[in-house]
Amino acid sequence: MKLRNVLRKIAFCLIGACLAPVLSTPALAQAQDPLPSWNMGSAKQAIVSFVRKVTDKSSPAYVPPADRIATFDQDGTLWVEHPLYSQAMFALERVHELAPKHPAWKTEQPFKAVLANDRESMARFTEQDWAKIIGATHAGMTTEAFLKIAQDWLSKARHPRFKRPYTELIYQPMLEVMQYLRANGFKTYIVTGGGQEFVRAYSERVYGVPPEQVVGSSIATKYEYQDGKPVLMRLPKVFFIDDKTGKPMGINLFIGKRPLAAFGNSGGDREMLEYTGTGPGTRLMMLVLHDDDKREYAYGPAEGLPDTKVGTFSQALRDEANKLGWVVISMKQDWKKIFPWE
Amino acid sequence: MKLRNVLRKIAFCLIGACLAPVLSTPALAQAQDPLPSWNMGSAKQAIVSFVRKVTDKSSPAYVPPADRIATFDQDGTLWVEHPLYSQAMFALERVHELAPKHPAWKTEQPFKAVLANDRESMARFTEQDWAKIIGATHAGMTTEAFLKIAQDWLSKARHPRFKRPYTELIYQPMLEVMQYLRANGFKTYIVTGGGQEFVRAYSERVYGVPPEQVVGSSIATKYEYQDGKPVLMRLPKVFFIDDKTGKPMGINLFIGKRPLAAFGNSGGDREMLEYTGTGPGTRLMMLVLHDDDKREYAYGPAEGLPDTKVGTFSQALRDEANKLGWVVISMKQDWKKIFPWE
Repeated sequence: MKLRNVLRKIAFCLIGACLAPVLSTPALAQAQDPLPSWNMGSAKQAIVSFVRKVTDKSSPAYVPPADRIATFDQDGTLWVEHPLYSQAMFALERVHELAPKHPAWKTEQPFKAVLANDRESMARFTEQDWAKIIGATHAGMTTEAFLKIAQDWLSKARHPRFKRPYTELIYQPMLEVMQYLRANGFKTYIVTGGGQEFVRAYSERVYGVPPEQVVGSSIATKYEYQDGKPVLMRLPKVFFIDDKTGKPMGINLFIGKRPLAAFGNSGGDREMLEYTGTGPGTRLMMLVLHDDDKREYAYGPAEGLPDTKVGTFSQALRDEANKLGWVVISMKQDWKKIFPWE
Repeated sequence: MKLRNVLRKIAFCLIGACLAPVLSTPALAQAQDPLPSWNMGSAKQAIVSFVRKVTDKSSPAYVPPADRIATFDQDGTLWVEHPLYSQAMFALERVHELAPKHPAWKTEQPFKAVLANDRESMARFTEQDWAKIIGATHAGMTTEAFLKIAQDWLSKARHPRFKRPYTELIYQPMLEVMQYLRANGFKTYIVTGGGQEFVRAYSERVYGVPPEQVVGSSIATKYEYQDGKPVLMRLPKVFFIDDKTGKPMGINLFIGKRPLAAFGNSGGDREMLEYTGTGPGTRLMMLVLHDDDKREYAYGPAEGLPDTKVGTFSQALRDEANKLGWVVISMKQDWKKIFPWE
């Protein structure tokens, strides 16, 4: 083969086989707008400026890829949490489904209230009530069986307002942030108060986050045998609550590194953002504010509402954000579109 | 620029910038011997044949990279565990170091035995005794302070027989297996009964395994404030024991995927190998047998010894390995060299 042909072949290989790594280099990823669903404003600028600083080798804020960790709360940060967390919906619907096997539930709280669709009582459910419901609906099966139950439910369930699967009610702008960070060498983690195994049932498909990058609340498991085959049985016993102070604890336990960027939307994320912000160097802390009742919902300080159980973004949290330089994302002003299908 | 020059430039770029990804492709990695410290034999063949099968797209055993998970026990599998686990050495030496601050230890067990170097009593320490020692030596400081204490100790401590830092007493053949698997798209995890935070202090530097890929035993932490700054304080309270049935539980908790390959050396790894082997498709389960008292140590069924506390590789485990097709690695016969510095 002539030199020219050899080189032509190499050039062909370069364009073919090496296209993917070339496209994912920071320089090219930044050439076009990496956040097309964001309106230009201080929130978008904060993200882009942060990524440029920590990935620019000549910047004093440069951080090597191994330490580029970004953590995302899920409910209210990556997908809709109103009128109720999806996983709570899942649990309540499971109670209805399992009721024929548990006749005592008709007279036994908290199940009685769920079966009677008694919304007033349900709104007053304590943590203990929810623990009973989770124990009855999320335990007593193997991890593999639970995965299938969760996936089946997700494929059938529809959101009461949007009439779409919950996994379609994800925020397009946040997906873009995750992709943008990954294209710039970040490892993106979901750090959720929700059930770790529940979120893992769809995290890779929906967010591009593999199971090992989902940190969440969990119940205990037990290694036992079914027909001579080992299984992990899910027990009705809380193992770890990944919320509030549990978030930095979970981050340390699962990741062992302090995040460089953290995204949340409520009091459950306060300590994760605080822990992130206390690290040295340049950090990015952001809070999604739900102030768009037309396209999604408005709650928290946007409406001057008091703390609510779902999505507690209090005025105190907003004040703290202002004081500490955490960036508040206004859904109404910062997001050109909310959902991928809009 | 002439076409030839353009192509020459592209070729130059290919050789320069793209060298790293090219070298890590399976085809080239396999061209030279990926396991030079292994003698040719059934153990080496089992590894190479396994990797070829699961990475060959035309093979029915093909597994996509996302599911290529390999888990490695540490003590006795990746580094020397005799005459005592390094972390136990660390704990005992910490007792001596902290003793001046705890005068009561002179008369209080198990500390009294440690301070008196009473080897007979120490050999009889119960799990409760060890829990007391771990509580006194591994807790009561922040996670950051503990990391520094562990790293300082590791830099100074020397193994009683080899007179080298513990982090040099790693098995070169196992390092090669880890590198070979990573070059073939595997994610390598350490799954150890030892302390997760202790192993994370050196895992990246020594094994190329980042903190987030170390699964181990842990104590509880508490989020609190020191001089107004949030810290994670280590509590004298066991959180999770990653040993025996705890290994598959830990794997499910931290990774959320069943390993494709698992490596151990003792009864503490039995369930990890069993759990790995029960998955569908081609799997690789291996046990390191310590049968080389000249170059390292001989214990377990190699010497017909009964179960010992350290490195319990019983005859029953060997029988099970034979029955289930787990491959036993003979240090004496399979390993050309044991340590990197030989």
